[in-house]
Amino acid sequence: MPKYYFEDFSTGWTAEYGPRRVTREEIIGFAAQYDPQPMHLDEEAARNTMLGGLGASGWHSCCIMMKMIADGLLLDTASMGAPGIEEVKWLKPIRPGDSLTVRGSVQWTRPSQSKPDRGFVSFFWEVSNDRGERVMTLICPQMIERRNAGAAA
Amino acid sequence: MPKYYFEDFSTGWTAEYGPRRVTREEIIGFAAQYDPQPMHLDEEAARNTMLGGLGASGWHSCCIMMKMIADGLLLDTASMGAPGIEEVKWLKPIRPGDSLTVRGSVQWTRPSQSKPDRGFVSFFWEVSNDRGERVMTLICPQMIERRNAGAAA
Repeated sequence: MPKYYFEDFSTGWTAEYGPRRVTREEIIGFAAQYDPQPMHLDEEAARNTMLGGLGASGWHSCCIMMKMIADGLLLDTASMGAPGIEEVKWLKPIRPGDSLTVRGSVQWTRPSQSKPDRGFVSFFWEVSNDRGERVMTLICPQMIERRNAGAAA
Repeated sequence: MPKYYFEDFSTGWTAEYGPRRVTREEIIGFAAQYDPQPMHLDEEAARNTMLGGLGASGWHSCCIMMKMIADGLLLDTASMGAPGIEEVKWLKPIRPGDSLTVRGSVQWTRPSQSKPDRGFVSFFWEVSNDRGERVMTLICPQMIERRNAGAAA
């Protein structure tokens, strides 16, 4: 049974998850599988790129964040998924050994106009490293079931 | 040596990559690692979710697309990375056995105003399955080096 429903979120809600340490092995392993650009794959080659050294793929950063949010919040929430992502900003490289925390806040909530069993919650997620630098932000509207949605239907 | 530089892209540019078949094993494997929601992880549990059956994580879809674009285009391009993603829409579930193609088109290009060695190219990516359904779209502005940027600097 989920702990959290649409009604449990409102402007002012915040939460923090982590820390989660990122290793060199997983940065390179992810890159080999999904984003084989030299800056994510090879320390030597990465030195001559924009990143100035090995850094995680931006997609890897998204996936690491997703796992932290799933474990910390979504698996306990009556989530019905997300229709997409509104915006991702990759602000700084994620380096081998970085410990990441993710902070979430609610931008707005609104009940669905067509489906009375659910509502939308727009989350703003900020990922920071252990040097206090913000490395990524992401805006994602989440569909969440209303409490007692089944009973009302 | 890259084949493609900033000057090689303009409105009207299009390309298509794939097909790329997605297996049940990789859908479940990705979900276990990065997005362990029941709809991406377990056929039986997925039946009672929004997806109505097992479907790939939206993040997995992004990663599969990234690999297709890297292999098809970016590894041959003087790409300097992307500052982020402007928009992702997950339109339909990606099912085990689906064969995906990705079509890219250029929305706009502009030289960087502050750095004469590069420009921005905004790509619109559309991922379709082998039933002709569009399953995902994505807008991403890419930084790309200008041809002879080193010589001009």
